Amino acid sequence: MMAIPPEEALTLLAGSSVGVLATVRPDGSPHAVPFVFAVSGRTLYWAVDRKPKRTEALQRLSNIRANPRVEVLVHRYEEDWSRLWWVRGTGTARVLEPGDEARDALNLLAQRRPQYRAAPPAGPVVAIDLLRWSGWRASEPV
Amino acid sequence: MMAIPPEEALTLLAGSSVGVLATVRPDGSPHAVPFVFAVSGRTLYWAVDRKPKRTEALQRLSNIRANPRVEVLVHRYEEDWSRLWWVRGTGTARVLEPGDEARDALNLLAQRRPQYRAAPPAGPVVAIDLLRWSGWRASEPV
Repeated sequence: MMAIPPEEALTLLAGSSVGVLATVRPDGSPHAVPFVFAVSGRTLYWAVDRKPKRTEALQRLSNIRANPRVEVLVHRYEEDWSRLWWVRGTGTARVLEPGDEARDALNLLAQRRPQYRAAPPAGPVVAIDLLRWSGWRASEPV
Repeated sequence: MMAIPPEEALTLLAGSSVGVLATVRPDGSPHAVPFVFAVSGRTLYWAVDRKPKRTEALQRLSNIRANPRVEVLVHRYEEDWSRLWWVRGTGTARVLEPGDEARDALNLLAQRRPQYRAAPPAGPVVAIDLLRWSGWRASEPV
């Protein structure tokens, strides 16, 4: 594996829309769930979608409210290991109140995810301000 | 989305070999990385592989030594959302000393990953004893 230059890692992250969101539960244990996101600049947006995944979503929201430190991982896995890469972003999360930023984020998510045009997410929007990011790709067949 | 019955979630996890490992750093922030694993019963095994990913691997080991609570996520993503599923396992991690369990785990990993037969992982083996697991799949086209 070799490191991906930071600017390229951010581009790969911005070009992705599905990843894993890691948070920490109030009891100090890690929580990981897949999520759909859109990136604007150095901020990721995620919206709580419709039930019945609501319990899962609310766990994430309560984690974020107690501890806003989060990590986002996008992983392109290939059986041929020489083609795999992954990118990680570390940041802090904000649960948005209704307003311009939340509306813009929902529009962005709808542009990226056709499924969201048919069924817009109903829940709050969460912004993740990226503090740092990094990535790795295979440098050789292994 | 609908819940996958626990026994079926464990079967899906055991049939997978690539996922995301979430740990908590000593500073209380979450850490997420892709990893390759093998499952025996209710224990997952992962081995630290060769440099130059060693810094990443050592971060995970120091996280686990400070806080053994971990989460494992396997995510089968499909553009057709009606075919996606994900499974999560929550457990506690143990860094193994050389011995029977570590040797059996390395054999299991080599059976599952042809790449490991050519280049066996060099680092310590970590066992993750699963305490609970759950999963979701799409119940309908969305």
